[in-house]
Amino acid sequence: MNDAARTLISKAMETAKPPVEFSAYAPSNIALSKYWGKRDAARNLPLNSSLSISLAEWGSHTTVRPSSDGRDHVSLNGETLSATSKFAIKALKFADLFRGGKDIPLVIDTRNTIPTAAGLASSASGFAALTRALCGAFGLDLSESEMSLIARIGSGSATRSFWHGFARWDKGEAEDGSDSFAQPLAYNWPEFRIAIVAVDVGPKSHSSRDGMNHTVATSPLFATWPDQAEADCKAIEQAVADQDFPVLGALAEANALAMHATMQAARPALSYLTSDSWAILERLWQARQDGLEAYATMDAGANVKLLFLQDSEVNVLSLFPEAQVIDPFGAL
Amino acid sequence: MNDAARTLISKAMETAKPPVEFSAYAPSNIALSKYWGKRDAARNLPLNSSLSISLAEWGSHTTVRPSSDGRDHVSLNGETLSATSKFAIKALKFADLFRGGKDIPLVIDTRNTIPTAAGLASSASGFAALTRALCGAFGLDLSESEMSLIARIGSGSATRSFWHGFARWDKGEAEDGSDSFAQPLAYNWPEFRIAIVAVDVGPKSHSSRDGMNHTVATSPLFATWPDQAEADCKAIEQAVADQDFPVLGALAEANALAMHATMQAARPALSYLTSDSWAILERLWQARQDGLEAYATMDAGANVKLLFLQDSEVNVLSLFPEAQVIDPFGAL
Repeated sequence: MNDAARTLISKAMETAKPPVEFSAYAPSNIALSKYWGKRDAARNLPLNSSLSISLAEWGSHTTVRPSSDGRDHVSLNGETLSATSKFAIKALKFADLFRGGKDIPLVIDTRNTIPTAAGLASSASGFAALTRALCGAFGLDLSESEMSLIARIGSGSATRSFWHGFARWDKGEAEDGSDSFAQPLAYNWPEFRIAIVAVDVGPKSHSSRDGMNHTVATSPLFATWPDQAEADCKAIEQAVADQDFPVLGALAEANALAMHATMQAARPALSYLTSDSWAILERLWQARQDGLEAYATMDAGANVKLLFLQDSEVNVLSLFPEAQVIDPFGAL
Repeated sequence: MNDAARTLISKAMETAKPPVEFSAYAPSNIALSKYWGKRDAARNLPLNSSLSISLAEWGSHTTVRPSSDGRDHVSLNGETLSATSKFAIKALKFADLFRGGKDIPLVIDTRNTIPTAAGLASSASGFAALTRALCGAFGLDLSESEMSLIARIGSGSATRSFWHGFARWDKGEAEDGSDSFAQPLAYNWPEFRIAIVAVDVGPKSHSSRDGMNHTVATSPLFATWPDQAEADCKAIEQAVADQDFPVLGALAEANALAMHATMQAARPALSYLTSDSWAILERLWQARQDGLEAYATMDAGANVKLLFLQDSEVNVLSLFPEAQVIDPFGAL
């Protein structure tokens, strides 16, 4: 299989040095125009482009260093994981892309700064930080676009976690995935705010990967999603360029609801949103009718993320006192 | 405009007698495969066929008689309505199809037997009963298929309310609507049960007619609905023929969720279902995982309708004590 990401790593690793300790940080991100559906599972290539905003200091700090006892070690949030834990398996499988079959035992230490109560998945920031840390540890001189391409193999949304602010992952056209990576959008928007309204549902019943595969395979309404998502992505980028918040908010909310609609129509239905999520949306919609300029977006989980500008923050917090507010352009 | 329904009425009315008092009953119905989207608004022609089960004694009793004071009178559930009420306007506009501009003042008295708390729309049974009563009052000798064709002008779902049990409304192909009417399906299923779980939401914010027009016009996911609905309709008819309840239930629930998904993806989103509706669905899905053979269907409102067989009735009522059970083949 001709895979641009794997080829890029192999080539870069030809001149790699023995690993040294290297630490890196990557922010998590929330897609305003969603990634939902793969055109190629082996290369992790998407059916549509997506556009995100990074979550500033909410992300992953990852350190990679050579292991002194000849064995791999993976720890998460200070806790050493067993070799059979899901996280350890995924992280080491990703490190294997770099090691290419060679015996290079590593220690991988990841600490997420995302509040556990926020219930956000950390695979985006996790794989981006791990990519940065592995490239640094092996002394690879790769650009952020190249690292984005590589991180895609670990998690699609990780492509967008190499920058602060807005980023767009172009789906690309090439069969080998060489043009499927993210790039930062050079727009600053200091008033932009995100709030997470967490819905407690325990562990996810379906991974987002399984959910999207089930939807693509069985949802009769999925057929029109890729084109619509592509159009939304372009329109949202334009709204970012125009700093037109009501247009951006309405598009982002419609895009998220359409993605969840494709799942709801899957057979059997897939519903990451719970009645608590819908109750939050109802509260938001009522407040918007009453003048609040805030919009919602939801991913493969029950949490609702609110989008608004700084001058609505007091009203958003009065409506959702439990919300955690993120200032994506502040204090970086 | 060449309209088969209007032509049929005009022709039948050529030999009509002066009106006499005539009373008729029609049951309400619930679609197992939904009608959602028109291909022709003027003739009220659907984009897809639909299949329903009638609600036995839940329906409309309508009496039409000549008015003795030279003016039209409309009453609903014993209450005389003002000429400007929505119901009176719709009923008289429908009667005008028969009167064809002639001065024939009528009294129209409708009594719905549907419990108010069930929150079910009564336009299906209302227009079917009104069609029967008008045909009877004018002494028109029309078949039930012909009356179904005529009732379509008042309300699409009324086409299916001329019989007890299952009925299928074929979308038809003809431009004039001559082949777009319902017919009964000759299957008896004495164990079949329906339960209404009412969700209190006050008056509907959007009529189903407005909701479907908005969805067809703006929902990017609507494009694939008509073909899927047609396929579901055929598959559900087969499940009725086979008396295969799990297949019927799963198809009906998937069809309803797909219809609501098309609305959720409309721009702006349309959501007849509320967080209370979703909480009922969650309770049902959990119970189904635990072995309960019951399925849900939802129309343009927040209520959830449960489908199950007689031997699950005790368990359904223990899960939803507020549910009202209908025996569609019993005591008719």
